[in-house]
Amino acid sequence: MMIIMKPGSTQVEIEHVIEQIRENGLTSHLSIGEDHTVIGAVGDTHAVPTAVFEVLDGVESVIRISQPYKLASRQFHPNNSIFPLDGFTVGGDEIAIIAGPCSVESREQLLETARAVQAAGAHALRGGVFKPRTSPYTFQGLGEEGLEFVAEARQLTGMPVVVEITSITQLDLMVKYVDVIQIGARNMQNFALLSAIGKTQTPVLLKRGMSATIEELLMASEYILSGGNQRVMLCERGIRTFETATRNTTDINAIPVLKALTHLPVLLDPSHSTGHADYVPAVARAAIAAGADGLIIEVHPDPAHALSDGRQSLKPEKFAELVRQVRQIAEVMGRSLAPTTKVQEA
Amino acid sequence: MMIIMKPGSTQVEIEHVIEQIRENGLTSHLSIGEDHTVIGAVGDTHAVPTAVFEVLDGVESVIRISQPYKLASRQFHPNNSIFPLDGFTVGGDEIAIIAGPCSVESREQLLETARAVQAAGAHALRGGVFKPRTSPYTFQGLGEEGLEFVAEARQLTGMPVVVEITSITQLDLMVKYVDVIQIGARNMQNFALLSAIGKTQTPVLLKRGMSATIEELLMASEYILSGGNQRVMLCERGIRTFETATRNTTDINAIPVLKALTHLPVLLDPSHSTGHADYVPAVARAAIAAGADGLIIEVHPDPAHALSDGRQSLKPEKFAELVRQVRQIAEVMGRSLAPTTKVQEA
Amino acid sequence: MMIIMKPGSTQVEIEHVIEQIRENGLTSHLSIGEDHTVIGAVGDTHAVPTAVFEVLDGVESVIRISQPYKLASRQFHPNNSIFPLDGFTVGGDEIAIIAGPCSVESREQLLETARAVQAAGAHALRGGVFKPRTSPYTFQGLGEEGLEFVAEARQLTGMPVVVEITSITQLDLMVKYVDVIQIGARNMQNFALLSAIGKTQTPVLLKRGMSATIEELLMASEYILSGGNQRVMLCERGIRTFETATRNTTDINAIPVLKALTHLPVLLDPSHSTGHADYVPAVARAAIAAGADGLIIEVHPDPAHALSDGRQSLKPEKFAELVRQVRQIAEVMGRSLAPTTKVQEA
Amino acid sequence: MMIIMKPGSTQVEIEHVIEQIRENGLTSHLSIGEDHTVIGAVGDTHAVPTAVFEVLDGVESVIRISQPYKLASRQFHPNNSIFPLDGFTVGGDEIAIIAGPCSVESREQLLETARAVQAAGAHALRGGVFKPRTSPYTFQGLGEEGLEFVAEARQLTGMPVVVEITSITQLDLMVKYVDVIQIGARNMQNFALLSAIGKTQTPVLLKRGMSATIEELLMASEYILSGGNQRVMLCERGIRTFETATRNTTDINAIPVLKALTHLPVLLDPSHSTGHADYVPAVARAAIAAGADGLIIEVHPDPAHALSDGRQSLKPEKFAELVRQVRQIAEVMGRSLAPTTKVQEA
Repeated sequence: MMIIMKPGSTQVEIEHVIEQIRENGLTSHLSIGEDHTVIGAVGDTHAVPTAVFEVLDGVESVIRISQPYKLASRQFHPNNSIFPLDGFTVGGDEIAIIAGPCSVESREQLLETARAVQAAGAHALRGGVFKPRTSPYTFQGLGEEGLEFVAEARQLTGMPVVVEITSITQLDLMVKYVDVIQIGARNMQNFALLSAIGKTQTPVLLKRGMSATIEELLMASEYILSGGNQRVMLCERGIRTFETATRNTTDINAIPVLKALTHLPVLLDPSHSTGHADYVPAVARAAIAAGADGLIIEVHPDPAHALSDGRQSLKPEKFAELVRQVRQIAEVMGRSLAPTTKVQEA
Repeated sequence: MMIIMKPGSTQVEIEHVIEQIRENGLTSHLSIGEDHTVIGAVGDTHAVPTAVFEVLDGVESVIRISQPYKLASRQFHPNNSIFPLDGFTVGGDEIAIIAGPCSVESREQLLETARAVQAAGAHALRGGVFKPRTSPYTFQGLGEEGLEFVAEARQLTGMPVVVEITSITQLDLMVKYVDVIQIGARNMQNFALLSAIGKTQTPVLLKRGMSATIEELLMASEYILSGGNQRVMLCERGIRTFETATRNTTDINAIPVLKALTHLPVLLDPSHSTGHADYVPAVARAAIAAGADGLIIEVHPDPAHALSDGRQSLKPEKFAELVRQVRQIAEVMGRSLAPTTKVQEA
Repeated sequence: MMIIMKPGSTQVEIEHVIEQIRENGLTSHLSIGEDHTVIGAVGDTHAVPTAVFEVLDGVESVIRISQPYKLASRQFHPNNSIFPLDGFTVGGDEIAIIAGPCSVESREQLLETARAVQAAGAHALRGGVFKPRTSPYTFQGLGEEGLEFVAEARQLTGMPVVVEITSITQLDLMVKYVDVIQIGARNMQNFALLSAIGKTQTPVLLKRGMSATIEELLMASEYILSGGNQRVMLCERGIRTFETATRNTTDINAIPVLKALTHLPVLLDPSHSTGHADYVPAVARAAIAAGADGLIIEVHPDPAHALSDGRQSLKPEKFAELVRQVRQIAEVMGRSLAPTTKVQEA
Repeated sequence: MMIIMKPGSTQVEIEHVIEQIRENGLTSHLSIGEDHTVIGAVGDTHAVPTAVFEVLDGVESVIRISQPYKLASRQFHPNNSIFPLDGFTVGGDEIAIIAGPCSVESREQLLETARAVQAAGAHALRGGVFKPRTSPYTFQGLGEEGLEFVAEARQLTGMPVVVEITSITQLDLMVKYVDVIQIGARNMQNFALLSAIGKTQTPVLLKRGMSATIEELLMASEYILSGGNQRVMLCERGIRTFETATRNTTDINAIPVLKALTHLPVLLDPSHSTGHADYVPAVARAAIAAGADGLIIEVHPDPAHALSDGRQSLKPEKFAELVRQVRQIAEVMGRSLAPTTKVQEA
């Protein structure tokens, strides 16, 4: 950590900084420039907030040199983390595709979609039962009843299921029913929830908040990892910018940046990151070409009657076409789609 | 709501839209342009998602004409909502100032700050006990013990207390201890939490999310209002932009925009919206000049030893100076600072 | 165009709107809702500003339904525009790669780079001689002397050359020396420059401004097209967002969105859109996978001594590897790299 | 400047950095941390780009400690720059208000507006004759003919005139006709234009680009100052963010930040920063309360027939009311409105 002093800072101010460095278990190193004195704070700084120095008199700014996360960092864990799910792995050479409806709307809708996405090549089933909706007047999800349908779809297809949690009060249910707990963009900094999930052993799909930096996403994963749950998958899902032609802006840069910074698997959700079914296949291909480890995609047998996100949901036949394209891109990347489970007879 | 059809949309597609309009309890109105047919959907549309039309074949886009919120809207409630707190009101002619430390750190720190801000002219005391922190390695707040100190400060000064909630599991404690529940930026779209608070009768200070639009802030308030809790105060606290000279960008436009759109009181938090104590007084004055109903400001007796947000905390004497300036601006605006409670003898 | 009246607008206000519609050569169509009257303005509206209605009393907002651009629109020109350059085409099945140094620094540097990028598979040479630099204290380009070196590199390699213009006063020189005039992000809305270039017949590479919407990029192209110059290539080069891990945020969504909205060729510049050589190959592959028609990439034989943008410049051998990867992605997309000109003997 | 080396950087890499430091006329200072070696580069660094170090092998990042601007910096020029215009000053205790139409539309419109804003208390007249418009199909300004009307309005009222330049080819005309050359947001980084204006002695009003950082605005001013023209006034006019309720987001923080960083006068343009006449007075008051030195405001006698920006233009009587409010805020700030010139008889 480097503490930059203001021009004209006094000897007493500099000594206070050095004292603060010592109190935080670090050693100091002085460098005197033309305008600015710079004081290095050397040692294990990831748990020392820059704020403890920023507030001192005479300090202009504080620059963190080491990363503020450790468990998520590739620096301390150079090899990719590879997590097995039922019948396939995430984070290694295999590309995983999670697909399904935005919301579980009924038993029939879910089972039909589950069979369709499995036939098209999906490896896991998504489906929301607690829905975070901007308006209190719109469909809020089926709740626990929906989880029963999810369990049945799991049973029927053999595919692991990915379901979003929206409240810490749902955690016991989630651990009981689901294979992967999804943390949505709006809860990426719900730290109480992150900490609680960190104490379970259920794999997690952690989505980037819509205005979260890449570093904040990694810090959010650090909450889960530091609780003891090592199986965290990260997911870029678009960020909020000034552009209005699409629902969000897919930050495709985040794929190679995350792959450089962390050993955790990195997925992309082109349904939310574009907001429009027409653009999903192009961005899904781009994600794999950029090095993503997988995709999560909204599929609905009848988007025109979806209770949420119909506009960005693919029909099963469009999804099947997307899987074919993604498979080819994966091969160019020296990777392959994960093997699919055998489709069960209905 | 206006449904814009794509150029070349068919008669059958248009009929499906009209049928969907009918199914949603609305009546339709057709307008045929050179390239585009536009279908109006007339009736009470605030609870009809645009998505039910967007997903239909042949639809290019859907434009909402009426506001998607109703209880928060000034259109249906033209007069300002004015909420009494202990000894003063918020939302009327009086300007309210909430002040105190970012975090409650100890009994002594809180009581000292409470007395200091009261002496300087504050009307209510803020102080966090459950802290949402980006890093799991930094101070997370004193928890329930902190609430005891808050209660003591309340007793000592007679000032109502404002405390942030970070999990639905803290709600019973909050209702017991605090006068105003603060919902922080990171939880503005924690809909489970909003709904639960909507069922209490404790006043709420709802902060804008760091990338939330003004409309989303109003929709978040609608969750609370529709649960039956009418006492919601809104708070601008800066949004996230590309500018890095300040921690956030104060959206001062939001003050007159919110005052035009809603009857709810509107406050501003210049501590978070600037992130730097040097800029807090200027932005506090600007807020009142722009028409805000109050301020919430971080004050710490010794910012250099604050466990969080020290950089943006004012020392009590700087805060007292700010109150003097704000008082003069309030008078120019034809308003006045709320009366302060008598300072109790220590 | 739809004009939305405020609740409670008067008959006189509505009549003024209808009169304004008539004065603009359009016909009106009335639709009366519960709260809002909506008036359609039907006819050829692309040249009618929404502002002529927005300013009228009683008007709440005005929504444009038809696109404000016409010459750039795929609606009126469904087939891709395909422009021949020396020996290859842009906008059809062939993928074109433009490469070269950020700045022309010397005759030797340019010729060496030109030969290296040609050997690696580039189709055209880039190189700036007038440099837009944030600081007046940094290298501003070689100016006209640099153009002589560019001409020599063109002669030597047979590759067409792409050079950025930064002032209308350079236009005659540019028309004389270069094959493609590049308009940089900072000049995307330099309308005097756009109009002047529209009166030439030199092909144009128009880069998106760093905070320009996709629609604004298309409107900027409309300035050139409406002057009579039809050969405009668009280029996504990253937009400015809150993310600081990369220099800009590559808006990969813009590729399929632009391909849907316009017939003009669409390229991507991963050097500027990421700002870091390490991330350029991943984003270059993503661009082609998303449907881009080409790439423009910074290459320098010795990035450590580049006078500008060294950090994001690839060494020739890294660029050659990128070309190999892009070729494979192009094949998956059913496309191929454009043929390269024969490398001339030095 | 601090050069942060990657973990594991070699001795040879470190020596290359030290050599590069020496070649740039600076001295080096080594600091060895647990993971990272940090090398300080000490001396006058404002003209040394960080890029010369960023490109070296083993370098992770480079942090600038001194400001990259010098002439604009308050550090080297602690007192406010105060510029006299006809009959008043900008940058001292007096608050200056510039007002007038967005576009000069006709002789009558301009003279009527000039008289009205003068009567209401304006100190200078604005009016555009070369208009930067997003669409090539909308009114582009009267051009040189408009300047004649501007000169006549100047003659009639005695007020100095402020006119936007949009091309370097207009510079001779501008120097001849206008008192203050305005550089609009879209040309803030038109460096050829900035340099040319730097060689004149005409005062400049430099507007912040819509996605320019505060530092970039100061660097743009440095181009003008380093050319020899010292009279630069800066103007915040709103930045582009995700919020769509207003045309731009007023960055009110920029006022105190700029006043801290630079000695140049700082104005605010609430017409563009809000885009809506209803919000202009609130933001104008806020600007002065935050410490701005002046305002530039669009006023039109008949906004409903304005050829541009009518929606954000105030009628003269609303402007007069705004001036009254601003006067009171100025007094609270210990300042006063500049004296107005005597209104001439028509």
